[in-house]
Amino acid sequence: MLLVMRKNATQEEIDAVEKAVIEAGYTSRPIPGGERMAIGVLRNAGPVDPALFAGMPGVAQAIPVTRPYKLVSREVHPHDTVVRVGDVLVGNGHFTFMAGPCAVESLEQCLAIARAVKAAGAQIFRGGAFKPRTSPYSFQGLGEEGLKILAKVREETGLPVVTEALDTAVFDLVEHYADMIQIGARNMQNFSLLRRAGQSKKPVLLKRGMSSTIEEWLMAAEYILEGGNSNVVLCERGLRTFAMHSRNTLDLSAVPVVLKESHLPVIADPSHAAGVRDQVLPLARASAAVGVHGLMVEVHDHPEKALSDGGQSLYPDQFVELAGDIRAIHELLMARAK
Amino acid sequence: MLLVMRKNATQEEIDAVEKAVIEAGYTSRPIPGGERMAIGVLRNAGPVDPALFAGMPGVAQAIPVTRPYKLVSREVHPHDTVVRVGDVLVGNGHFTFMAGPCAVESLEQCLAIARAVKAAGAQIFRGGAFKPRTSPYSFQGLGEEGLKILAKVREETGLPVVTEALDTAVFDLVEHYADMIQIGARNMQNFSLLRRAGQSKKPVLLKRGMSSTIEEWLMAAEYILEGGNSNVVLCERGLRTFAMHSRNTLDLSAVPVVLKESHLPVIADPSHAAGVRDQVLPLARASAAVGVHGLMVEVHDHPEKALSDGGQSLYPDQFVELAGDIRAIHELLMARAK
Amino acid sequence: MLLVMRKNATQEEIDAVEKAVIEAGYTSRPIPGGERMAIGVLRNAGPVDPALFAGMPGVAQAIPVTRPYKLVSREVHPHDTVVRVGDVLVGNGHFTFMAGPCAVESLEQCLAIARAVKAAGAQIFRGGAFKPRTSPYSFQGLGEEGLKILAKVREETGLPVVTEALDTAVFDLVEHYADMIQIGARNMQNFSLLRRAGQSKKPVLLKRGMSSTIEEWLMAAEYILEGGNSNVVLCERGLRTFAMHSRNTLDLSAVPVVLKESHLPVIADPSHAAGVRDQVLPLARASAAVGVHGLMVEVHDHPEKALSDGGQSLYPDQFVELAGDIRAIHELLMARAK
Amino acid sequence: MLLVMRKNATQEEIDAVEKAVIEAGYTSRPIPGGERMAIGVLRNAGPVDPALFAGMPGVAQAIPVTRPYKLVSREVHPHDTVVRVGDVLVGNGHFTFMAGPCAVESLEQCLAIARAVKAAGAQIFRGGAFKPRTSPYSFQGLGEEGLKILAKVREETGLPVVTEALDTAVFDLVEHYADMIQIGARNMQNFSLLRRAGQSKKPVLLKRGMSSTIEEWLMAAEYILEGGNSNVVLCERGLRTFAMHSRNTLDLSAVPVVLKESHLPVIADPSHAAGVRDQVLPLARASAAVGVHGLMVEVHDHPEKALSDGGQSLYPDQFVELAGDIRAIHELLMARAK
Repeated sequence: MLLVMRKNATQEEIDAVEKAVIEAGYTSRPIPGGERMAIGVLRNAGPVDPALFAGMPGVAQAIPVTRPYKLVSREVHPHDTVVRVGDVLVGNGHFTFMAGPCAVESLEQCLAIARAVKAAGAQIFRGGAFKPRTSPYSFQGLGEEGLKILAKVREETGLPVVTEALDTAVFDLVEHYADMIQIGARNMQNFSLLRRAGQSKKPVLLKRGMSSTIEEWLMAAEYILEGGNSNVVLCERGLRTFAMHSRNTLDLSAVPVVLKESHLPVIADPSHAAGVRDQVLPLARASAAVGVHGLMVEVHDHPEKALSDGGQSLYPDQFVELAGDIRAIHELLMARAK
Repeated sequence: MLLVMRKNATQEEIDAVEKAVIEAGYTSRPIPGGERMAIGVLRNAGPVDPALFAGMPGVAQAIPVTRPYKLVSREVHPHDTVVRVGDVLVGNGHFTFMAGPCAVESLEQCLAIARAVKAAGAQIFRGGAFKPRTSPYSFQGLGEEGLKILAKVREETGLPVVTEALDTAVFDLVEHYADMIQIGARNMQNFSLLRRAGQSKKPVLLKRGMSSTIEEWLMAAEYILEGGNSNVVLCERGLRTFAMHSRNTLDLSAVPVVLKESHLPVIADPSHAAGVRDQVLPLARASAAVGVHGLMVEVHDHPEKALSDGGQSLYPDQFVELAGDIRAIHELLMARAK
Repeated sequence: MLLVMRKNATQEEIDAVEKAVIEAGYTSRPIPGGERMAIGVLRNAGPVDPALFAGMPGVAQAIPVTRPYKLVSREVHPHDTVVRVGDVLVGNGHFTFMAGPCAVESLEQCLAIARAVKAAGAQIFRGGAFKPRTSPYSFQGLGEEGLKILAKVREETGLPVVTEALDTAVFDLVEHYADMIQIGARNMQNFSLLRRAGQSKKPVLLKRGMSSTIEEWLMAAEYILEGGNSNVVLCERGLRTFAMHSRNTLDLSAVPVVLKESHLPVIADPSHAAGVRDQVLPLARASAAVGVHGLMVEVHDHPEKALSDGGQSLYPDQFVELAGDIRAIHELLMARAK
Repeated sequence: MLLVMRKNATQEEIDAVEKAVIEAGYTSRPIPGGERMAIGVLRNAGPVDPALFAGMPGVAQAIPVTRPYKLVSREVHPHDTVVRVGDVLVGNGHFTFMAGPCAVESLEQCLAIARAVKAAGAQIFRGGAFKPRTSPYSFQGLGEEGLKILAKVREETGLPVVTEALDTAVFDLVEHYADMIQIGARNMQNFSLLRRAGQSKKPVLLKRGMSSTIEEWLMAAEYILEGGNSNVVLCERGLRTFAMHSRNTLDLSAVPVVLKESHLPVIADPSHAAGVRDQVLPLARASAAVGVHGLMVEVHDHPEKALSDGGQSLYPDQFVELAGDIRAIHELLMARAK
């Protein structure tokens, strides 16, 4: 924390600020400048609340300096983490496709889609058994029956499955059936859920909240690592902005920033960011080109009859095209990086 | 839902859209215009996913028409709801102050603050026992011990207490001790928590998520009413925007819109919106003037030593000033409305 | 500027950064901390570009410290500026109503509205002769004819008039006829226009751009003051956010911040922020309560026939109600401030 | 425009709305639904102001239906426009690199950079002679001297040049020297400038405003086409959002939307979106992969000494790498599209 004093701050005001810093348990270090004094707040174990000092007489600004995250930081853990989901590796050169319907609707539906996406190169099957829905009147997912269908799909196709744990109450159940547990964007700061995920042996897919900063996202991952589970994959899925032509605005600049700050793998979900089918393929290509480690894509064999988010789901042959494009871009980047 | 066709849409495309509407279980109603055709989608029980039709050939736009909420709507329930918290009434002419520290720290602290805010006119005491914190390393609240302190404060001062239920796991506990249960901004779309709140006999304070539309906020309340609990008070606490001079941007235009759309009471929380003490009083005055039914304000007897959010907490004498200003504004509005 | 080094930064990296700081013409001051080094960049005349150093090896963050504005700052000019528009004073205890139609349509219309708003207490008449319109096919204003109508209104009613100068080409004309020159939100960073306004003897009303930070807004005012014209009134009129229930989100927390940072008067324009009539009165009350020095409000005698923005214009009797409410709130604040 | 009535709207209210529609010059078409009435507003030449009817008794919502743009629309002009800049073609399969320094500083600097970027494959040279700067104290560009340098660069290297016209006052000058005239993001709704550009014979590069919707952006282009100049290239350069890890959030989903709605070419400017060098290459790759027709990139031979935006400028060898990556991605997309 750096406290910048006003130009006309009195010595009494400066003394009072230094005293407050020391009383709060920190070390105070005055930094005289050309026109004004600044005071460094040092030896703080965690983040310091800027508002604690910002309101004191003579203080012009209180500026946080150090990053609050530790275990997720590349400063602490310099090498790329590779997360294992079943036999599939995510991160550090491995490019992973996760594909499937928004919601699990039936075994037939899931098997048909799973076989199609596997044939196109998907390595992990996705499908929601518990669905977060804005309306209490919308289809909420098949629940445990959906999880059993997912397990059956894995058995039949060999694909590991990822599905969302909507709350701590169903976490055990999801953990039992799934190979990877998704924490959705709306739950990114559901700290109870994050703590529970920290105690799991299963890898976790942590979506970025649609109004979350990168720091908040990494701090959410920090909760999971701090609990003992370091198998976390981050997933960018778009920000809420004033731009209404897509459901959310995919924030691709977050990818190089996260890759620089953290050792965790990062994937993107163009389906939820777009909200409409036409944008999914171009945004998937853009995500691959920006350098993600994988993609999560919604695919449905009959999108027009889907119980949830049909309008953003690709037809299986569109996914074949997407997977081909993406593989070509990924290989091109790998070749050029050499 | 209204489907607007492109100017050059063929009759085949129009027919295909009408067929898709009917197959999806709706009624199709063609609306020929001057330059193009539109197709109304009628007889839909709930909201229709625009993306289902938006991608079809010839479709220029898919525009949702009806509001998805029912029980919270003034169309269904025209008269103002008044919510009872202990013996305190919220809504429809009653102006309610909820005040107290961000986090419960000790009985002495809470009693001192509670007596001060009661003397200044607060009718409900607030204080967090379970705290949602961005960092796993920050103080997380006293838990059940905090709830017991709140119960003791009620016993000593007669003030009913409101406190946050962070998840379904602690809901029973919070319900047992508190007079009103807060669902925080980060949990506004924690649907499990909303469903649990719908089964409670206790009134619920539902904060607006910082990137939530009014429709999503009212739909979150709809979950609670649909579960059987119609004692919901809405709380505006600011949006996440690019403006960084306050923690969030208090969206006061939401207040007249919600008052028009819904029968539920609405209060504002200027402390969390502002994030800094200097802005709390002016934003509290603005909230009262815009027409809220109450305010939730953070007050601490020693903000500089607070374990959470000290920088935005008012000193007790600042709250006295605030309460005086707000009462004067409220009485003025009541007198002028006659 | 403060450059925070990575924990594992080498001495060579630190030396290179210090060298770069000195070569760029600044003074470098190392600040050793517990875990990492920081380097202060001092003696900079103006703002330093953070990106200059942020990309250097070993640098974790580059944090700007000093405010870039000077003439508009309260640090340089501690006392409130009062701006004179004709015989009307704006700022420092004077509360000023500016009211009138969005666009000047005819002398009859303007006179009717001007008399109505004057009777209700408005001190300045507003009306657009040159209108910024999103569509080239919309009504663009009457141009010089509109300015002549405004001059006639002043002559007949005694009210000074404020109107927008859309570009430098029409500035002379607007300056000739008007008592106060408005620079619109879309032009807030039209630097040529700001420079021209800086050479004017007439007072300037500077609206905040809908995606501008407070710093950018004050820097726009700095252009005008730097040019020699210190008669600037700032006007908050809402931000572009994801919230679509109002046209823009009025940022009332900006008001206390600007009042603290700058000596210039600040008013609000609830009409353009709201975009719909129903929200204008509550937002006007909120603006008055937060502490603005005045309001700009659109009033039309036949809003349903207005050539521009009729839907947000108040009927004259609604303005009477608004003016009464606002005066009462302002007097209450004045009385309580004593 | 579609007017949706409240469920409990009376026949009198419906009649009044229909009457108002007709009086405003439109045709009214009632659309009875299951639970409520809707009223179509037809035969409108241009856009209808929703607020005109939204406030009438019984009206629940007023929903705009038709797009307001005409000349830029693919409905009017189905085939891709190809814009010629000197001898360089932009659009419809041609991929165009525009590269150069943020600001023109000297002939030596410009020639050195121009030769480097030409060697790497750039077809158009960019450089600012008139710079829009947030601060009046920052370097504002060399003015006409800068334009002369650009002309000299063209003469020496054969590269056509693009540079910004900051206002109508300097437009003639810029038009005289440049091959393509840039209208910057802050000027996207400077309607006087757009009208002037509409009268030019030179092609125009129209940057998207950082808080502009796609509709507003296309309407800005509509001003230029309506004036008679159809040689417009659109440039996406990022939105202002709460995300502060990049200067702006590049909105890549805008690209497929604009390509669908309009026939004009679209390029991206990753340098200004990013604001920091590290993000420029990944965002450039993402832009190419999403399907833009070209890129504008800032390159400087000594970024650390640049007079403007040095921190986001690439070193020449970084541009070589970027151009290689982008060409490979573009060729891959062309090959796969066959």
